Amino acid sequence: MAEPGRDDPVERLVEALARIPGLGRRSARRAALRLLTEPERLLHPLRSALKAAADSVRPCSECGNLDATDPCGICADASRERKSLCVVETVADVWALERARAHRGLYHVLGGVLSPIAGVTPESLALPALLRRVEALGVVEVILALPATVDGAATAHYVTDRLAGRSIVITRPAQGVPIGGALDVLDEGTIAAALKGRRPL
Amino acid sequence: MAEPGRDDPVERLVEALARIPGLGRRSARRAALRLLTEPERLLHPLRSALKAAADSVRPCSECGNLDATDPCGICADASRERKSLCVVETVADVWALERARAHRGLYHVLGGVLSPIAGVTPESLALPALLRRVEALGVVEVILALPATVDGAATAHYVTDRLAGRSIVITRPAQGVPIGGALDVLDEGTIAAALKGRRPL
Repeated sequence: MAEPGRDDPVERLVEALARIPGLGRRSARRAALRLLTEPERLLHPLRSALKAAADSVRPCSECGNLDATDPCGICADASRERKSLCVVETVADVWALERARAHRGLYHVLGGVLSPIAGVTPESLALPALLRRVEALGVVEVILALPATVDGAATAHYVTDRLAGRSIVITRPAQGVPIGGALDVLDEGTIAAALKGRRPL
Repeated sequence: MAEPGRDDPVERLVEALARIPGLGRRSARRAALRLLTEPERLLHPLRSALKAAADSVRPCSECGNLDATDPCGICADASRERKSLCVVETVADVWALERARAHRGLYHVLGGVLSPIAGVTPESLALPALLRRVEALGVVEVILALPATVDGAATAHYVTDRLAGRSIVITRPAQGVPIGGALDVLDEGTIAAALKGRRPL
Protein backbone atom coordinates (compact mmCIF):
# COMPACT_ATOMS: atom_id res chain seq x y z
CA MET A 1 0.00 0.00 0.00
CA ALA A 2 1.34 3.39 -0.95
CA GLU A 3 -1.43 5.32 0.72
CA PRO A 4 -0.55 4.02 4.15
CA GLY A 5 -3.00 2.37 6.52
CA ARG A 6 -4.24 3.76 9.82
CA ASP A 7 -1.48 2.31 11.99
CA ASP A 8 1.20 3.42 9.60
CA PRO A 9 3.51 6.15 11.00
CA VAL A 10 2.93 8.37 7.97
CA GLU A 11 -0.82 8.08 8.37
CA ARG A 12 -0.58 8.72 12.12
CA LEU A 13 1.33 11.91 11.37
CA VAL A 14 -1.27 12.99 8.82
CA GLU A 15 -4.03 12.35 11.40
CA ALA A 16 -2.24 14.32 14.12
CA LEU A 17 -1.61 17.22 11.76
CA ALA A 18 -5.17 17.19 10.42
CA ARG A 19 -6.46 17.94 13.94
CA ILE A 20 -4.61 21.26 13.99
CA PRO A 21 -7.07 24.05 13.28
CA GLY A 22 -6.33 25.55 9.88
CA LEU A 23 -5.02 22.30 8.37
CA GLY A 24 -7.55 20.17 6.53
CA ARG A 25 -6.86 16.58 5.64
CA ARG A 26 -5.45 17.49 2.26
CA SER A 27 -3.08 20.13 3.65
CA ALA A 28 -2.14 17.77 6.49
CA ARG A 29 -1.00 15.20 3.95
CA ARG A 30 1.04 17.83 2.12
CA ALA A 31 2.47 19.07 5.43
CA ALA A 32 3.40 15.51 6.50
CA LEU A 33 5.21 14.93 3.23
CA ARG A 34 7.17 18.15 3.56
CA LEU A 35 8.06 17.40 7.19
CA LEU A 36 9.32 13.96 6.15
CA THR A 37 11.12 15.24 3.07
CA GLU A 38 12.94 17.99 4.95
CA PRO A 39 13.42 16.56 8.44
CA GLU A 40 16.40 18.77 9.35
CA ARG A 41 14.64 22.00 8.43
CA LEU A 42 11.06 21.12 9.42
CA LEU A 43 10.45 17.92 11.37
CA HIS A 44 13.25 18.10 13.96
CA PRO A 45 12.72 21.80 14.84
CA LEU A 46 9.00 21.15 15.24
CA ARG A 47 9.67 18.16 17.50
CA SER A 48 12.02 20.08 19.76
CA ALA A 49 9.71 23.12 19.83
CA LEU A 50 6.79 20.90 20.86
CA LYS A 51 8.91 19.29 23.55
CA ALA A 52 10.08 22.64 24.91
CA ALA A 53 6.54 23.99 24.88
CA ALA A 54 5.07 20.89 26.51
CA ASP A 55 7.78 20.93 29.17
CA SER A 56 7.61 24.58 30.10
CA VAL A 57 4.43 26.36 28.99
CA ARG A 58 1.67 26.41 31.59
CA PRO A 59 -1.41 28.52 32.25
CA CYS A 60 -0.58 31.43 34.54
CA SER A 61 -2.13 30.68 37.94
CA GLU A 62 -3.10 34.32 38.21
CA CYS A 63 -4.66 35.30 34.89
CA GLY A 64 -4.80 32.12 32.78
CA ASN A 65 -2.43 33.39 30.07
CA LEU A 66 -0.05 30.74 28.67
CA ASP A 67 3.62 31.35 29.35
CA ALA A 68 6.87 29.64 30.27
CA THR A 69 6.79 31.36 33.65
CA ASP A 70 4.14 31.40 36.37
CA PRO A 71 3.04 34.07 37.09
CA CYS A 72 3.21 34.95 33.39
CA GLY A 73 5.30 37.77 31.97
CA ILE A 74 2.37 40.19 32.10
CA CYS A 75 1.36 39.46 35.70
CA ALA A 76 5.02 39.63 36.76
CA ASP A 77 5.64 42.93 34.97
CA ALA A 78 5.82 45.56 37.72
CA SER A 79 5.37 48.38 35.19
CA ARG A 80 1.81 47.31 34.36
CA GLU A 81 -1.20 49.06 35.79
CA ARG A 82 -2.55 46.56 38.34
CA LYS A 83 -5.88 48.26 39.00
CA SER A 84 -7.16 47.87 35.44
CA LEU A 85 -8.26 44.35 34.52
CA CYS A 86 -9.23 43.29 31.00
CA VAL A 87 -11.48 40.20 30.97
CA VAL A 88 -11.22 38.07 27.82
CA GLU A 89 -12.49 34.71 26.62
CA THR A 90 -9.23 33.09 25.49
CA VAL A 91 -5.45 33.41 25.57
CA ALA A 92 -5.62 34.29 21.88
CA ASP A 93 -7.49 37.45 22.88
CA VAL A 94 -4.70 38.38 25.32
CA TRP A 95 -2.16 38.06 22.55
CA ALA A 96 -4.28 40.06 20.11
CA LEU A 97 -4.64 42.91 22.60
CA GLU A 98 -0.92 42.79 23.39
CA ARG A 99 -0.03 42.94 19.69
CA ALA A 100 -2.16 46.08 19.43
CA ARG A 101 -0.51 47.45 22.61
CA ALA A 102 -4.06 48.37 23.49
CA HIS A 103 -4.05 47.67 27.24
CA ARG A 104 -1.45 48.54 29.86
CA GLY A 105 -3.16 46.76 32.76
CA LEU A 106 -3.56 43.08 33.56
CA TYR A 107 -5.76 40.41 31.98
CA HIS A 108 -8.11 37.72 33.14
CA VAL A 109 -8.80 34.76 30.84
CA LEU A 110 -12.23 33.26 31.50
CA GLY A 111 -11.54 30.20 29.37
CA GLY A 112 -14.89 30.47 27.60
CA VAL A 113 -18.21 32.25 27.76
CA LEU A 114 -21.39 31.12 29.48
CA SER A 115 -23.46 28.85 27.25
CA PRO A 116 -26.46 26.91 28.56
CA ILE A 117 -26.54 24.88 25.33
CA ALA A 118 -22.86 23.88 25.52
CA GLY A 119 -23.18 23.34 29.28
CA VAL A 120 -20.74 26.13 30.19
CA THR A 121 -21.71 27.32 33.67
CA PRO A 122 -20.12 30.06 35.83
CA GLU A 123 -18.34 27.29 37.75
CA SER A 124 -16.60 25.97 34.64
CA LEU A 125 -15.13 29.40 33.91
CA ALA A 126 -12.47 31.31 35.86
CA LEU A 127 -15.16 33.49 37.48
CA PRO A 128 -14.44 32.83 41.18
CA ALA A 129 -10.78 33.66 40.48
CA LEU A 130 -11.87 36.87 38.78
CA LEU A 131 -13.80 38.00 41.85
CA ARG A 132 -10.85 37.11 44.10
CA ARG A 133 -8.41 39.05 41.93
CA VAL A 134 -10.69 42.09 41.73
CA GLU A 135 -10.60 42.18 45.55
CA ALA A 136 -6.93 41.36 45.96
CA LEU A 137 -5.67 43.83 43.36
CA GLY A 138 -8.05 46.61 44.35
CA VAL A 139 -9.21 46.84 40.75
CA VAL A 140 -10.92 50.10 39.79
CA GLU A 141 -11.76 49.32 36.13
CA VAL A 142 -12.87 46.04 34.55
CA ILE A 143 -12.87 46.04 30.75
CA LEU A 144 -15.11 43.27 29.43
CA ALA A 145 -13.49 42.46 26.07
CA LEU A 146 -15.77 39.48 25.43
CA PRO A 147 -17.05 38.26 22.05
CA ALA A 148 -19.87 40.28 20.51
CA THR A 149 -22.14 37.22 20.52
CA VAL A 150 -25.27 36.31 22.48
CA ASP A 151 -23.19 34.15 24.85
CA GLY A 152 -20.54 36.86 25.14
CA ALA A 153 -23.18 39.46 26.03
CA ALA A 154 -24.80 37.10 28.55
CA THR A 155 -21.41 36.53 30.15
CA ALA A 156 -20.77 40.28 30.30
CA HIS A 157 -24.13 40.77 32.04
CA TYR A 158 -23.36 37.99 34.49
CA VAL A 159 -19.95 39.43 35.37
CA THR A 160 -21.47 42.91 35.73
CA ASP A 161 -24.07 41.52 38.15
CA ARG A 162 -21.43 39.77 40.21
CA LEU A 163 -19.36 42.93 40.46
CA ALA A 164 -22.35 45.11 41.42
CA GLY A 165 -22.04 47.07 44.68
CA ARG A 166 -18.31 47.62 44.31
CA SER A 167 -16.96 51.00 43.21
CA ILE A 168 -15.64 49.64 39.95
CA VAL A 169 -16.05 51.13 36.48
CA ILE A 170 -17.11 48.40 34.06
CA THR A 171 -16.48 49.15 30.39
CA ARG A 172 -16.39 47.34 27.08
CA PRO A 173 -14.49 48.13 23.86
CA ALA A 174 -16.27 50.40 21.38
CA GLN A 175 -18.18 48.70 18.59
CA GLY A 176 -18.11 50.24 15.14
CA VAL A 177 -16.51 50.37 11.72
CA PRO A 178 -13.06 48.74 11.63
CA ILE A 179 -10.14 51.02 10.66
CA GLY A 180 -9.91 50.89 6.87
CA GLY A 181 -13.24 49.11 6.69
CA ALA A 182 -15.66 49.90 3.88
CA LEU A 183 -19.26 50.31 4.98
CA ASP A 184 -20.72 48.28 2.14
CA VAL A 185 -18.99 45.05 3.20
CA LEU A 186 -20.00 45.33 6.87
CA ASP A 187 -22.91 43.47 8.40
CA GLU A 188 -26.00 45.43 9.41
CA GLY A 189 -25.38 44.93 13.15
CA THR A 190 -21.97 46.58 12.98
CA ILE A 191 -23.26 49.46 10.88
CA ALA A 192 -26.15 50.02 13.29
CA ALA A 193 -23.77 49.92 16.29
CA ALA A 194 -21.40 52.36 14.59
CA LEU A 195 -24.19 54.83 13.83
CA LYS A 196 -25.67 54.52 17.29
CA GLY A 197 -22.26 55.16 18.86
CA ARG A 198 -21.42 58.11 16.59
CA ARG A 199 -19.09 60.76 18.01
CA PRO A 200 -18.65 64.45 17.15
CA LEU A 201 -15.73 65.05 14.78
CA MET B 1 5.77 40.52 27.45
CA ALA B 2 2.62 38.69 26.43
CA GLU B 3 3.56 38.29 22.81
CA PRO B 4 6.59 36.19 23.61
CA GLY B 5 10.11 36.93 22.39
CA ARG B 6 12.11 34.85 19.92
CA ASP B 7 13.71 32.50 22.45
CA ASP B 8 10.40 31.91 24.21
CA PRO B 9 9.07 28.34 23.88
CA VAL B 10 5.71 29.58 22.64
CA GLU B 11 7.36 31.70 19.98
CA ARG B 12 9.67 28.83 18.99
CA LEU B 13 6.60 26.66 18.49
CA VAL B 14 4.90 29.34 16.40
CA GLU B 15 8.05 29.64 14.26
CA ALA B 16 8.31 25.88 13.74
CA LEU B 17 4.64 25.63 12.81
CA ALA B 18 4.81 28.65 10.49
CA ARG B 19 7.37 26.79 8.34
CA ILE B 20 4.84 24.08 7.54
CA PRO B 21 3.45 24.69 4.07
CA GLY B 22 -0.19 25.73 4.34
CA LEU B 23 0.20 27.46 7.71
CA GLY B 24 0.92 31.16 7.60
CA ARG B 25 2.20 33.03 10.64
CA ARG B 26 -1.28 33.93 11.77
CA SER B 27 -2.59 30.37 11.52
CA ALA B 28 0.61 29.10 13.15
CA ARG B 29 -0.09 31.27 16.17
CA ARG B 30 -3.65 30.00 16.37
CA ALA B 31 -2.41 26.41 15.94
CA ALA B 32 0.20 26.84 18.69
CA LEU B 33 -2.43 28.15 21.09
CA ARG B 34 -4.74 25.25 20.37
CA LEU B 35 -1.92 22.73 20.76
CA LEU B 36 -1.02 24.28 24.13
CA THR B 37 -4.62 24.58 25.26
CA GLU B 38 -5.47 20.98 24.42
CA PRO B 39 -2.20 19.11 24.98
CA GLU B 40 -3.80 15.71 25.55
CA ARG B 41 -5.85 15.82 22.38
CA LEU B 42 -3.47 17.73 20.11
CA LEU B 43 0.07 18.35 21.33
CA HIS B 44 0.99 14.93 22.73
CA PRO B 45 -0.42 12.92 19.79
CA LEU B 46 1.45 15.19 17.38
CA ARG B 47 4.70 14.76 19.33
CA SER B 48 4.46 10.98 19.35
CA ALA B 49 3.42 10.86 15.69
CA LEU B 50 6.43 13.01 14.77
CA LYS B 51 8.71 10.77 16.80
CA ALA B 52 7.32 7.60 15.21
CA ALA B 53 7.61 9.10 11.75
CA ALA B 54 11.13 10.42 12.35
CA ASP B 55 12.22 7.06 13.75
CA SER B 56 10.77 4.82 11.08
CA VAL B 57 9.91 6.58 7.84
CA ARG B 58 12.68 6.56 5.25
CA PRO B 59 12.88 6.98 1.48
CA CYS B 60 12.60 3.62 -0.27
CA SER B 61 16.05 2.73 -1.57
CA GLU B 62 14.39 1.38 -4.71
CA CYS B 63 11.88 3.99 -5.83
CA GLY B 64 12.24 6.95 -3.46
CA ASN B 65 8.72 6.67 -1.99
CA LEU B 66 8.49 7.40 1.75
CA ASP B 67 7.47 4.47 3.92
CA ALA B 68 8.11 2.76 7.24
CA THR B 69 9.63 -0.19 5.38
CA ASP B 70 12.47 -0.39 2.88
CA PRO B 71 11.75 -1.45 0.18
CA CYS B 72 8.46 0.40 0.47
CA GLY B 73 5.05 -1.28 0.47
CA ILE B 74 4.66 -0.78 -3.27
CA CYS B 75 8.09 -2.12 -4.25
CA ALA B 76 7.60 -5.08 -1.88
CA ASP B 77 4.11 -5.89 -3.20
CA ALA B 78 4.53 -9.02 -5.33
CA SER B 79 1.15 -8.46 -6.99
CA ARG B 80 2.29 -5.29 -8.74
CA GLU B 81 3.29 -5.27 -12.38
CA ARG B 82 7.09 -4.88 -12.26
CA LYS B 83 7.64 -4.12 -15.92
CA SER B 84 5.65 -0.89 -15.92
CA LEU B 85 7.40 2.04 -14.25
CA CYS B 86 5.74 5.38 -13.59
CA VAL B 87 8.25 8.23 -13.24
CA VAL B 88 7.10 11.12 -11.03
CA GLU B 89 8.61 14.25 -9.55
CA THR B 90 7.68 13.82 -5.88
CA VAL B 91 6.34 11.35 -3.32
CA ALA B 92 3.14 13.40 -3.28
CA ASP B 93 2.61 12.36 -6.91
CA VAL B 94 2.97 8.66 -5.95
CA TRP B 95 0.29 9.10 -3.30
CA ALA B 96 -2.02 10.97 -5.67
CA LEU B 97 -1.72 8.20 -8.29
CA GLU B 98 -2.28 5.53 -5.63
CA ARG B 99 -5.38 7.31 -4.35
CA ALA B 100 -6.73 7.25 -7.90
CA ARG B 101 -5.72 3.55 -8.20
CA ALA B 102 -4.47 4.64 -11.59
CA HIS B 103 -1.30 2.58 -11.87
CA ARG B 104 -0.71 -1.08 -11.04
CA GLY B 105 3.03 -1.04 -11.72
CA LEU B 106 5.93 0.45 -9.80
CA TYR B 107 7.04 4.06 -9.38
CA HIS B 108 10.24 6.00 -9.59
CA VAL B 109 10.50 9.30 -7.71
CA LEU B 110 12.96 11.66 -9.39
CA GLY B 111 12.98 14.08 -6.49
CA GLY B 112 12.58 17.10 -8.75
CA VAL B 113 12.72 18.16 -12.37
CA LEU B 114 15.67 19.50 -14.32
CA SER B 115 16.02 23.24 -13.92
CA PRO B 116 19.10 25.13 -15.14
CA ILE B 117 17.94 28.23 -13.23
CA ALA B 118 17.48 26.39 -9.91
CA GLY B 119 20.70 24.44 -10.53
CA VAL B 120 18.95 21.06 -10.76
CA THR B 121 21.14 18.83 -12.94
CA PRO B 122 20.62 15.18 -13.96
CA GLU B 123 23.11 14.23 -11.23
CA SER B 124 21.01 15.79 -8.48
CA LEU B 125 17.97 13.72 -9.50
CA ALA B 126 17.43 9.97 -9.17
CA LEU B 127 18.19 9.47 -12.86
CA PRO B 128 21.10 7.00 -12.66
CA ALA B 129 18.92 4.87 -10.35
CA LEU B 130 16.11 5.06 -12.90
CA LEU B 131 18.34 3.70 -15.67
CA ARG B 132 19.60 0.93 -13.37
CA ARG B 133 16.07 -0.07 -12.39
CA VAL B 134 14.86 -0.06 -16.00
CA GLU B 135 17.60 -2.59 -16.75
CA ALA B 136 17.22 -4.66 -13.60
CA LEU B 137 13.43 -4.94 -13.77
CA GLY B 138 13.30 -5.47 -17.53
CA VAL B 139 10.86 -2.59 -17.80
CA VAL B 140 8.76 -2.51 -20.99
CA GLU B 141 6.80 0.70 -20.36
CA VAL B 142 7.91 3.95 -18.75
CA ILE B 143 5.09 6.39 -17.98
CA LEU B 144 6.46 9.91 -17.58
CA ALA B 145 3.94 11.49 -15.20
CA LEU B 146 5.95 14.68 -14.82
CA PRO B 147 4.57 18.20 -14.31
CA ALA B 148 3.15 19.93 -17.37
CA THR B 149 5.69 22.73 -17.06
CA VAL B 150 8.68 23.78 -19.16
CA ASP B 151 11.05 22.08 -16.70
CA GLY B 152 8.83 19.00 -16.56
CA ALA B 153 8.77 18.77 -20.36
CA ALA B 154 12.56 19.24 -20.52
CA THR B 155 13.00 16.46 -17.98
CA ALA B 156 10.68 14.19 -19.96
CA HIS B 157 12.76 14.85 -23.07
CA TYR B 158 15.97 14.14 -21.20
CA VAL B 159 14.68 10.85 -19.80
CA THR B 160 13.37 9.85 -23.25
CA ASP B 161 16.82 10.54 -24.72
CA ARG B 162 18.55 8.49 -22.06
CA LEU B 163 16.21 5.54 -22.64
CA ALA B 164 16.60 5.67 -26.45
CA GLY B 165 17.77 2.49 -28.15
CA ARG B 166 15.97 0.21 -25.69
CA SER B 167 12.74 -1.54 -26.68
CA ILE B 168 10.68 0.41 -24.18
CA VAL B 169 7.37 2.17 -24.78
CA ILE B 170 7.53 5.67 -23.30
CA THR B 171 4.16 7.29 -22.59
CA ARG B 172 2.74 10.20 -20.69
CA PRO B 173 -0.72 10.76 -19.16
CA ALA B 174 -3.33 12.30 -21.48
CA GLN B 175 -3.80 16.05 -21.27
CA GLY B 176 -7.30 17.46 -21.57
CA VAL B 177 -10.44 18.59 -19.85
CA PRO B 178 -10.68 17.41 -16.19
CA ILE B 179 -13.66 15.20 -15.33
CA GLY B 180 -16.52 17.55 -14.43
CA GLY B 181 -14.51 20.51 -15.71
CA ALA B 182 -16.32 23.31 -17.52
CA LEU B 183 -14.60 24.54 -20.65
CA ASP B 184 -15.05 28.21 -19.87
CA VAL B 185 -12.94 28.11 -16.71
CA LEU B 186 -10.03 26.24 -18.29
CA ASP B 187 -6.85 27.90 -19.47
CA GLU B 188 -6.20 28.12 -23.22
CA GLY B 189 -3.32 25.64 -23.12
CA THR B 190 -5.51 22.92 -21.66
CA ILE B 191 -8.35 23.61 -24.10
CA ALA B 192 -5.92 23.50 -27.03
CA ALA B 193 -4.40 20.22 -25.74
CA ALA B 194 -7.88 18.72 -25.27
CA LEU B 195 -8.95 19.63 -28.79
CA LYS B 196 -5.72 18.44 -30.34
CA GLY B 197 -6.02 15.12 -28.52
CA ARG B 198 -9.71 14.62 -29.37
CA ARG B 199 -10.94 11.03 -29.65
CA PRO B 200 -13.84 9.49 -31.56
CA LEU B 201 -16.94 8.95 -29.39
